[in-house]
Amino acid sequence: MVYRKHIQLHTSGHGDLHDLSEAVLRVVEQSKVDCGVAHIFVIGSTGAVGTIEYEPGLAADLPDTLDRLIPPGRHYQHEQAWGDGNAHSHLQATLLGASLGVPVENGRLILGTYQQIVFLECDTRPRERTLVVTVVGEVKRR
Amino acid sequence: MVYRKHIQLHTSGHGDLHDLSEAVLRVVEQSKVDCGVAHIFVIGSTGAVGTIEYEPGLAADLPDTLDRLIPPGRHYQHEQAWGDGNAHSHLQATLLGASLGVPVENGRLILGTYQQIVFLECDTRPRERTLVVTVVGEVKRR
Amino acid sequence: MVYRKHIQLHTSGHGDLHDLSEAVLRVVEQSKVDCGVAHIFVIGSTGAVGTIEYEPGLAADLPDTLDRLIPPGRHYQHEQAWGDGNAHSHLQATLLGASLGVPVENGRLILGTYQQIVFLECDTRPRERTLVVTVVGEVKRR
Repeated sequence: MVYRKHIQLHTSGHGDLHDLSEAVLRVVEQSKVDCGVAHIFVIGSTGAVGTIEYEPGLAADLPDTLDRLIPPGRHYQHEQAWGDGNAHSHLQATLLGASLGVPVENGRLILGTYQQIVFLECDTRPRERTLVVTVVGEVKRR
Repeated sequence: MVYRKHIQLHTSGHGDLHDLSEAVLRVVEQSKVDCGVAHIFVIGSTGAVGTIEYEPGLAADLPDTLDRLIPPGRHYQHEQAWGDGNAHSHLQATLLGASLGVPVENGRLILGTYQQIVFLECDTRPRERTLVVTVVGEVKRR
Repeated sequence: MVYRKHIQLHTSGHGDLHDLSEAVLRVVEQSKVDCGVAHIFVIGSTGAVGTIEYEPGLAADLPDTLDRLIPPGRHYQHEQAWGDGNAHSHLQATLLGASLGVPVENGRLILGTYQQIVFLECDTRPRERTLVVTVVGEVKRR
């Protein structure tokens, strides 16, 4: 059994972190899958998904840390091609990753109490984002 | 076909690296899946999974490298909220990742000779950990 | 429905980035899966997969960034065991990751316009590489 749904997101620009847990859970509920995996994928090369405790502190610390490790304004070769000043956005997004799988049990996501599914906007400007959620698994009861 | 099993783990604290390959293989064998993917997920936001050559050198180098890139004791906003001194644990775990998929063929994991599935404890104290293993695939012969 | 195929790759050594999108798409087409996930996995502990805009600038920036964050020539414990000078290769590969899932819809990969599936050689020498592609999903029409 495979169920597919897209999640649309408006982001405010670089460092904007969104909690996707509720939206992914709704897709899982619609899928009627009891046991399986919910797979989340970012369309585009300057955004990323992951899990983190979603609270204001880490929502600032995560993009700050990525900007410290892969800062804007360095001499990146990507700028030779496009000159759009977002080489660091690409590199940060690739490092964090575009895909994530979260287990589904009894029709719910298995997550820690302080663990949320998040999207991080790494691009330098506001974007309309599409996340692809694919629920693969077994429908047992319903 | 979907098979689910949890793996329990006791960790000794920050930087403790565990080889999960045997435990995941046992779940794959129990699943009777011949061809598919074994998906491993960490419940909690301060631990991570990945693959690495599991030997004492890299078991020290991996947490050392993460501590160099994302050191404890910096001024993280997360500490404003909780003050529990583990902001770096959260950030390291998010960067390394909470989910991993490993292919299954003929009822075995496909891994390189020097490639193991590992859990890294990023938190600052010993923890009881639960990993969720989901085997998705086809049962052919048995 | 599960379909499995291996992709063979010859790499030129450290920092060699390969666009796998076409090869993965061919596996998806052979699978006849309409809706699901294509899972890509690197056999071996010194290579990694991810998504990035595949263009010459970022193809240089990505390995440069990893070499800046996790440089060769540091004092790594791994060298005590093997002395083969590729501890940084292992650590870079683990950080970037060995597994990736990309959604399949209407028998095609869902990717952004400037988003490709790539393999990064992190080892210090040319290698023959095997990537494992597993397509999990539903065959609807064909």
